[in-house]
Formats: sequence, structure tokens, C-alpha cells
Amino acid sequence: MLLSAQNSADSVYIKKISDEIMRNGKAHDLLRELTKGIGGRLAGSVQYTKAVQWGEASLKKLGADKVFLQECMMPNWKRGGKDLAVVVLQNGKKLNRSLDVLALGNSMGTGGKPLVAEVIAVQDFDEMEAKKDQLKGKIVYFNNKFNPTNIQPFKSYGEAGQYRRSGPSRAAKYGAVGVMIRSLTEGTDNNPHTGTTGYDEAYPKIPAIALGNFDADYIWSTTRNNTIKVSMTTNGSFGPDVVGHSVVAELTGTEFPNEYITVGGHLDSWDVNEGAHDDGAGIVQTIEIMRTLKALGYKPKRTLRFVLFANEENGMRGGNKYAEEAKKNNEKHVFALESDAGGFTPRGFGFTASTSQLSKVQSWLPLLRPYGTDFLQAGGGGADIGPLNKTFGTPIAGLMPDGQRYFDIHHARSDVFENVNKRELHLGAVNMAALIYLVDQYGL
Amino acid sequence: MLLSAQNSADSVYIKKISDEIMRNGKAHDLLRELTKGIGGRLAGSVQYTKAVQWGEASLKKLGADKVFLQECMMPNWKRGGKDLAVVVLQNGKKLNRSLDVLALGNSMGTGGKPLVAEVIAVQDFDEMEAKKDQLKGKIVYFNNKFNPTNIQPFKSYGEAGQYRRSGPSRAAKYGAVGVMIRSLTEGTDNNPHTGTTGYDEAYPKIPAIALGNFDADYIWSTTRNNTIKVSMTTNGSFGPDVVGHSVVAELTGTEFPNEYITVGGHLDSWDVNEGAHDDGAGIVQTIEIMRTLKALGYKPKRTLRFVLFANEENGMRGGNKYAEEAKKNNEKHVFALESDAGGFTPRGFGFTASTSQLSKVQSWLPLLRPYGTDFLQAGGGGADIGPLNKTFGTPIAGLMPDGQRYFDIHHARSDVFENVNKRELHLGAVNMAALIYLVDQYGL
Repeated sequence: MLLSAQNSADSVYIKKISDEIMRNGKAHDLLRELTKGIGGRLAGSVQYTKAVQWGEASLKKLGADKVFLQECMMPNWKRGGKDLAVVVLQNGKKLNRSLDVLALGNSMGTGGKPLVAEVIAVQDFDEMEAKKDQLKGKIVYFNNKFNPTNIQPFKSYGEAGQYRRSGPSRAAKYGAVGVMIRSLTEGTDNNPHTGTTGYDEAYPKIPAIALGNFDADYIWSTTRNNTIKVSMTTNGSFGPDVVGHSVVAELTGTEFPNEYITVGGHLDSWDVNEGAHDDGAGIVQTIEIMRTLKALGYKPKRTLRFVLFANEENGMRGGNKYAEEAKKNNEKHVFALESDAGGFTPRGFGFTASTSQLSKVQSWLPLLRPYGTDFLQAGGGGADIGPLNKTFGTPIAGLMPDGQRYFDIHHARSDVFENVNKRELHLGAVNMAALIYLVDQYGL
Repeated sequence: MLLSAQNSADSVYIKKISDEIMRNGKAHDLLRELTKGIGGRLAGSVQYTKAVQWGEASLKKLGADKVFLQECMMPNWKRGGKDLAVVVLQNGKKLNRSLDVLALGNSMGTGGKPLVAEVIAVQDFDEMEAKKDQLKGKIVYFNNKFNPTNIQPFKSYGEAGQYRRSGPSRAAKYGAVGVMIRSLTEGTDNNPHTGTTGYDEAYPKIPAIALGNFDADYIWSTTRNNTIKVSMTTNGSFGPDVVGHSVVAELTGTEFPNEYITVGGHLDSWDVNEGAHDDGAGIVQTIEIMRTLKALGYKPKRTLRFVLFANEENGMRGGNKYAEEAKKNNEKHVFALESDAGGFTPRGFGFTASTSQLSKVQSWLPLLRPYGTDFLQAGGGGADIGPLNKTFGTPIAGLMPDGQRYFDIHHARSDVFENVNKRELHLGAVNMAALIYLVDQYGL
């Protein structure tokens, strides 16, 4: 527990942090630059390289003690063109009903030629397994919906996500030639949502696309009583791995310079949108925290690292490399925090940490509550800082913003700047900065 | 405190409520009907009458035991046409710079003729008082901004709201002929926000308009070093009061039918938008709670009233009438709950209640937490249920959704259906229904 004199001084300092961000914050302006100036920035794209240059320049301009690029090899998947799907035959009759689709990230295309096959629609893997003898030569459609009764949509994402992640190979195992999935969303529009899939090397790497909810409903209801054929055309392919970079900035510690506290997000995004919430928000919050601490003349006890991680979406190479380098250099990583759940109003933080570390953090709740943090709970972190936890046992945490509308835009074309609210974005940075300040002051 | 066996049964029942709303909820569909089918519905408008018919029909169709209309006289203010403002002269030179403006609700127009006058811009009432000798014949512009450092935007609204509410008469006192205000918003667009003003009968009722943030910045910066004249044209006027109605539905109590629990929102909205968050959200949540309890076969102990209040925005006549009628009929009102802070993710409830009532409510927090209610705090209620509290001392509460983006759209053209998220809206109804259930079961 904190002494009350400390507590009061901390409360005053956190209010200064909050006022600086809410009054002078640059996160929203920075997000406009990143999303409107550069746009989607998948690993291996020209835009990703531009984003690295932008991040490096922004961190330097806003006063980091040190900025460097950390090289890593990145996968180089390209969508390769517009993804198409058309229902061409219904009960033997010609049709020309276009579907709005996106190929899954890392999926192999049809080689730019139409792949035409009958559709077999299933609710879930159980139904697919029951029909495994009927899959040969077919396109399997997985209709698994988000469970609307989960109050936390991230839970629904975890549950429904298996169809995107492993649906293609599980269908290919039984001779399916293509896969369509219902997008991982409860969105009330027809936007398809991409996201990474992975192939089991034992089976053919069949093409896979996601459908928006309206088209998903249409396919599901149509296939109840009709036989349809769909023509899919996708162009996904991998080139050889390319060199990429995470961007790392530091404010050097004054008492324990060899103890590192990391705060970050991921700089890459999908190619089909502006990556505004995912994860432009985390990137500009990270830069904003650095800017604010610098603007307030804060002298950290420990060395604070502000990291714009490479290649979270379809490879995790940046986060893995960061932990590898940390190990190679014998760095002592005492805490890491990531924002990668959208730039929405902050509600709390989730921690992967020891019981005593968590209970220390929880003693700070009264200091964070005035800024909207209502809980500091077990469970959480971030994809890019997970490797630090695995490598060193470093305690990690993730910002948990309100998640109700995240999956409406997640990996869809609608993840654009206009859907990020300035106050919500900045308030996330306030709560993150306050937590970083407290860990820096008192350690874990 | 609850016994734990009760507690567990309540937990199960609240989960049933939540599942019914999150899976089968009609609030979002009802909101589409109200906003897209009827639209803006200011007291005295044809649309308001349509909204009453729609509300009555919806409540009947969804199974209320009883539905009746409660008559009240309503003010009949009409905007009367498009509100215009143009900067026509700068330092004596002609100019034609249009401003995007809305007349304040209940304000008197210029009679449809341009009112041309020099602008005197002030930051606040203090500056206006210091310059009171310069106001004669001028248009006073109040530049008071939302304080961005308030974490709760409702606090900023309360603070900045005085310029909208009393700016016109305070300027008229010193001979000003018109008023412009910076809209009550931190919005990052140029939408002007209307809302009600009130005149002091001692002074001339001068026209008054609100400017969006871009135009407000322009006027403020221009007037630092320049003399400008603005031409305002507005058409606001009152007709004679008209007959209107609140819509009241009941589920009759089985044990204490003469004890009333009220849940409601207001059916009217401003004329310039669809009144989607303000307060279509509260209306459809109210109907949804009735639908859900009916669908689950819930037999309330006390009589539950579902009220779509008339004329909150520019008169409060519905809420006042409701308390008057309750008094006349010797009704016993044990609790009232309103949703009128937007259809955003619920975060808690605010109560105007005795200490013992509040502490009873707070013992229920563990039952509500799984659905997103993080606090049950002192302070709150709703404009339409305030009269019940004043008349009977009835404990009242208001749903407190996340408020960060509410004032971006509040009273502006952008308060439309598209800006309401289905899950957020439905989750508000879940938490309200759970609270109503608990009060019905255990009283206060």
C-alpha cells in the first residue's frame, strides 16, 4: 500500500498528466496523420515502411531521449487484387448474385481464376464432422455466429475465431476446395471482416473468404432448401520474407536506467482499412504518453520504452524479436503494457502477473478511478508483449477499453479515423500514462 | 443485504433477462422505426403526435396489461424556417462568409428579416459585465468552451450550459440585440447544437443562435483584431399551447398493485435531428424492458409503469403532469428510473435517495457488475422523474452510460440512428431491467 502522503502527491501528478493530455493531447491529430496520410499498412507494404518513418520522426520530434529501429524479418502476404464471390447457380439455374467478401489474411488465392463449386453450409465443426463424407470438391461455409449473450465481445471473438483460424485446413482435410466463413462480428451492416488464418501443412492450402452478416444470412437461409454454386476469385500469395522494423523510443531512467518499462501498440494493420482502432489507437496513445511525460518534465526512475511493434496482424515478428533482443542484451524488463483493443473509453486493465504484483497494482485503483478505470483484474496483456512475459516472466497488462462496438469495425473497411472519438482515445492515454507513472515510481 | 439463496436466484433471473434482451431484443429495431419512420418530434409537431401513436401501439402490441395516454398542455415553439447567419462586413469591407447555425430552442426569431449588427465577442459573463457599456445595439458572442479536463462531460455541460440558458437575457439587459454562442460540445466537426434557452421577462427577447466549433473558432479569432458585422435571420416563435400526451403502460403488480415503480424516457426530441440518443434510446429501452419482462412471464410484485414522457426538451410538461396526476390520485410511487443520457454502454446508475435506500441498492452491485454496472452512486435521476421526487420524496435514479461522445451529437443534426450501437443500447436495457427487477422484488 502507498503511504497517504505519497498517495496525495501521486493523485496531484496524475491530475497533471490527465490535464495535459485532455487539454493539449496530440493523439487524435497523430492518428489523422497515420490513417489519412498513410492508411492501411500491412507488413511488407510500402505503407508499412512509410509508417515506420512517420513513427520514428514523430517520436524524435516529440522529444524522446533516444529512438531506434529494431529490425525483424516480416512475412510478405499480398491480397493481390479484389476478392470476388458470386452465387452463379441455384438449383441448376443460372444466377448472378454478388457477395461482398474479403479473403482471409495469409490465405492462398484461387490464382486469379474463378473457383466454382457447390456450397455446403454448416453451423459449426460438429456439423462439419458429421458431414465429412460430403465435403469433397465443395466450398464449406461456416455459419458460426458471435454469441450475443456474452457481455464481453472479446469472449465471442475467442469462441467464433476458431473458424477463421482453422476452418480452411479442417475442411481441406476432407477434400473441400474452398471455405467461406461468417465474419467475426455482430455488426449491423454487410461489411466483411478479414483477419489471419493459418494452414495445417498436412492438407491443401485452400482459398478462404469472409462474408458480411447480410450475405452470411442470405447464404445460410438459401442453403437450407437449395443447392447453390459459388464462384470465388482471390489472389492471395506470399512473397519472400522482407526486412521490417519496430520503432523503439526511450526516456532514460534516472535511478534504475537498466530496468525497462515498455508501453506499446502495433504499427501494422490490415490492408483493407486505415487501421484506426486496430491499432492506430494504441500507436498514438503510446506516442502521446511519451509526449506528455516529456512535456511535464517527468524524469522517470526506470527507463521507459515506447514501442511501435511490427507485424502483429499476420506474423507477430516484431513482438517476438523484441523479446529475443531483450534476452540477448540481458535487459531487465519489469513491466510491459499494450493498447490493442481499440481507442474506446477505457474501463480497466487486465494483468498477467503474480498475485502479489496484482495486489500491489490493485492498491492503486483509487488513484485511477477518477479517470474511468473501474477495475484492475487478472488476465490480459497484449500479443506483442506476450513474448516478454514468456521469456522473462515480466508482468504484462493490456488496456481494456469498452468493447461493445469494437468488433463492428475490427478488420473491416469501416475501421477508419472517423470512427475514433477524440476524448475516448485521449482518455485511454491518460489511464495508461497514470499506470506507467505508478509502476515507474513504485515498481512491481 | 440479500440472503445468499435469494442472491443466487436473482443472479439466475437477471441472466435470463440479459439473455432475452441480448438475443431477442427489439430496442434497436424500435429505434429505427421511431427515428427513420417518424424522425424529429418536438412538442407541438405532427411528428410528436405520430410518435405518441407509435408508442401506444408498440406498448400494446408487446403485451402491456394496460396502456393509456396522459394529456398535458405543451408549448408550441416552431423554428419556422432555416436559420441563417452571415458575416457581411469585416473592418468596413463587404464579406459573405456563411456560418452554420441553429437558433436556440424557444428563442424568438428576427421575424424572418436580417438582423445586422456588430459583433462583440466575450469569453464569459465576467468579460461581458466588464464590457457592459459596449453592448448596446450589438450581437454578443459567447465563446465559453467545454472544459476538456473534466473527465465527465456532463460536468462541462452544466458549466457551459449557462450561456445557452441565460446568455440572451443577460446580454439583452445591456441593450444587445442578438446573441451567438459556441455550441455546448467538444465535437470535432462544425455542427451547431440547439437546446432550450429561457428569457427573463424584464428584458427584450432577443434572437439567439448556436455556432459549430469551427465557426466558433473563426469568429473568436477574427474578432481579436477585426470589427465584424453579422447578419442573422431566424424565425422562431410560439403558437398557443397545444394538447399533447405522455404514453403510460403498466404491468400490474400481483402483491402490491398500488405501489408504482416507474421507468421511462422522453418521447419528444429536437426538430433538427432524429432524437436517436436523446432520447429515442431511453424510449426504446423502456419499451424493451416491458417486452422482456412480459416475454419471460414475469409477474411483478408492484405495478410497473413504462412511461414515454412528453415535452422534456422545451417545457417539462409531461414529467410535471405525471407527478400532479399521481398526487391527485393518491398513488404511492416507490421508485422511478429514467434513461436520458444516451444509448451508450452503461457504466452505472446515479441515485437521489436516502442513505439507507442507497446502501440497500449498493448491496446489489455484485448482481449488476457482470452486465457492466460498475457503480451505484449518489446523485442523479432524470428531468421527467424529478417532479416525483419533489412531490413525494420518491427515490429516483438515472442510467449513466459512458458519456464521452454524447455531447458530440447532443441536440445536433448528427443525433441519428446510425450513431447508436445496437449492443450498447441493449446492454443499457439489460442493466435497467435488472435494477427494476431488484427494486420490484425487495422494495427500497
